[in-house]
Amino acid sequence: MSEGENQESVIFIGRKSTISYVLVAVTILNKNDTCNIQARGRQISKAVDVAEITRRKFLADQVVVDNVTISSEELPSDNGEGTKTVSTIEITLKKK
Amino acid sequence: MSEGENQESVIFIGRKSTISYVLVAVTILNKNDTCNIQARGRQISKAVDVAEITRRKFLADQVVVDNVTISSEELPSDNGEGTKTVSTIEITLKKK
Repeated sequence: MSEGENQESVIFIGRKSTISYVLVAVTILNKNDTCNIQARGRQISKAVDVAEITRRKFLADQVVVDNVTISSEELPSDNGEGTKTVSTIEITLKKK
Repeated sequence: MSEGENQESVIFIGRKSTISYVLVAVTILNKNDTCNIQARGRQISKAVDVAEITRRKFLADQVVVDNVTISSEELPSDNGEGTKTVSTIEITLKKK
């Protein structure tokens, strides 16, 4: 996350429905110029859906995908011993 | 897909295991300078895993993520009537 980034403009994708995150993204983009969508593991596909539905259906011709970054993170493993590595994605939507 | 792209350097992610696609990516990158990983819908998370595992474990310090693009495609819907929209991802790995 870049220094000085507005925490309020970040969405972390979890287990809620895709549309609920789309509505958060639309709300953020009505106030801010950018919205940063972050996800890990299996939620990565949902993050891409959230970005694409926001861009194509709700704010069509108003926002673009500014940047997409993939990476990996070390997390404590489920059984509490050692760590596991999960893939991550960070998608930035930006007002035109 | 950019014009003139080598078809042999493209991997389309389907239902096989993550590791089987990683091995294809490693094989491609032993012959070519780039490898293009493409996926749709739920396979998007797997595409990111394939890119990250290839980059971090199998070809560590040899390849970088050159580009990540997200988009949408219209496909015939499952019941044969009309179309559905699915998200897509395209990840390019490149030798350092």
